[in-house]
Amino acid sequence: MENYRRQVMYYETDRMGIVHNSNYLRYFEEARLDHMRQCGVPYPQLEKQGVIIPQLKAEIRYVSPLSYGDSFSVTVTVTDYTGTRIGYAYKISNESNGRVAAEGRTSHCFLDEEKRMPIDLGRRLPELSARLGENAD
Amino acid sequence: MENYRRQVMYYETDRMGIVHNSNYLRYFEEARLDHMRQCGVPYPQLEKQGVIIPQLKAEIRYVSPLSYGDSFSVTVTVTDYTGTRIGYAYKISNESNGRVAAEGRTSHCFLDEEKRMPIDLGRRLPELSARLGENAD
Amino acid sequence: MENYRRQVMYYETDRMGIVHNSNYLRYFEEARLDHMRQCGVPYPQLEKQGVIIPQLKAEIRYVSPLSYGDSFSVTVTVTDYTGTRIGYAYKISNESNGRVAAEGRTSHCFLDEEKRMPIDLGRRLPELSARLGENAD
Amino acid sequence: MENYRRQVMYYETDRMGIVHNSNYLRYFEEARLDHMRQCGVPYPQLEKQGVIIPQLKAEIRYVSPLSYGDSFSVTVTVTDYTGTRIGYAYKISNESNGRVAAEGRTSHCFLDEEKRMPIDLGRRLPELSARLGENAD
Repeated sequence: MENYRRQVMYYETDRMGIVHNSNYLRYFEEARLDHMRQCGVPYPQLEKQGVIIPQLKAEIRYVSPLSYGDSFSVTVTVTDYTGTRIGYAYKISNESNGRVAAEGRTSHCFLDEEKRMPIDLGRRLPELSARLGENAD
Repeated sequence: MENYRRQVMYYETDRMGIVHNSNYLRYFEEARLDHMRQCGVPYPQLEKQGVIIPQLKAEIRYVSPLSYGDSFSVTVTVTDYTGTRIGYAYKISNESNGRVAAEGRTSHCFLDEEKRMPIDLGRRLPELSARLGENAD
Repeated sequence: MENYRRQVMYYETDRMGIVHNSNYLRYFEEARLDHMRQCGVPYPQLEKQGVIIPQLKAEIRYVSPLSYGDSFSVTVTVTDYTGTRIGYAYKISNESNGRVAAEGRTSHCFLDEEKRMPIDLGRRLPELSARLGENAD
Repeated sequence: MENYRRQVMYYETDRMGIVHNSNYLRYFEEARLDHMRQCGVPYPQLEKQGVIIPQLKAEIRYVSPLSYGDSFSVTVTVTDYTGTRIGYAYKISNESNGRVAAEGRTSHCFLDEEKRMPIDLGRRLPELSARLGENAD
């Protein structure tokens, strides 16, 4: 798996001069969707099959603020996967100074988009489910 | 019609210390949807009828920047309405110092949500359409 | 203390049709800053004194999604306050259906804006510090 | 000059299923700052010299909506440059289907960050100013 990489956008900063705290959840999401793509489970394909993956929990520890002009990378790990739920851990590193910027975790369930009811991905889409499972720790 | 009013949020500012330029389009939208509600055409009701109103054009003139802590009001005017298209003009005033903050215009069409095809709101929902038309200049 | 109240904005939703998960951190911030104002410690006044309050940690439990058209309220509690750090707990309620939408916690430190060094608010601004402390659980 | 390229983020969509109209101004900004960097005038360097470049005007024509999963590219042109003002034109192309997604223009002035007063970049930073001017149409 390759880490997810990009630069901080100007509009992601706030008047404190640093990246607004809410954007780290967006960075987690970008990196998570990129990780799914690398696992062979692109999210647009899940959507076409009527599956959505809302967030149930999130936690973030802000270590060292990112600023405009910084590049960062995100490592993503699948911490647990049951077919009905998936957990991820993230570490965001500031590539401009080598420091950890933030760490966090999120957990998610799989829903049928139309019925908005929980589903077991292992039953609904066994092949895609296996690919997600293979990459769990 | 009552003007739309609220305060600037901290996260709407950027590292320049002022509201990011993209948020004025969000203020226009908030005020436009509030205006529709006041006209008796709440957007959630249009959505339930399968109608969406995407934006075709926008222009903004930034006059005097809004900052965190400022209150602002938005006056909204329907500049033209044809049943298939609607145009709005906006003036955002900084209530903390009485100055004009920004002015702008947007135009929109009506689409069938499922088919993503243009519709004539006057034929599809004549009563709601009439309420929008009544408020045009 | 009055709860913080407002409506969901259209642009706060994502293609899942519900409020994007990152916006709950923004709702926490809005409610926290409103709570500070009600305590007699408006954030713009702290900024003028050269004090900023970055976020150190955050956690969110998403219970029941907010959608466009929903009104919500946020209850804010100061869970601990030491003069160098402050912790908050939040509960977001969907006023359109009476259900809990999300719960969470954040913690923060006080920094000198220019030096970006931690400060003890009790020493730097004892009067404002006392007002924050009074409202701690 | 290379075009600016990236993918649509999930959180940039709204409940209409497409990229929210305000994000196109963010795409313009990302592409403009990348263009400045390619001209040899990186914005962080201007900031260090106490210069900021607020937006005075913007206009957008939305042609064909971008959705999650789409890749896009932005061509940026300097339409006019006087030393005190700079104008840009943009074309956003959807690389997933080859269609134009949006077109627009923005204009900007140069301000002294501290005094918030207009400056002539040609006098203040003649070398950087020349590089911006060279790339004007």
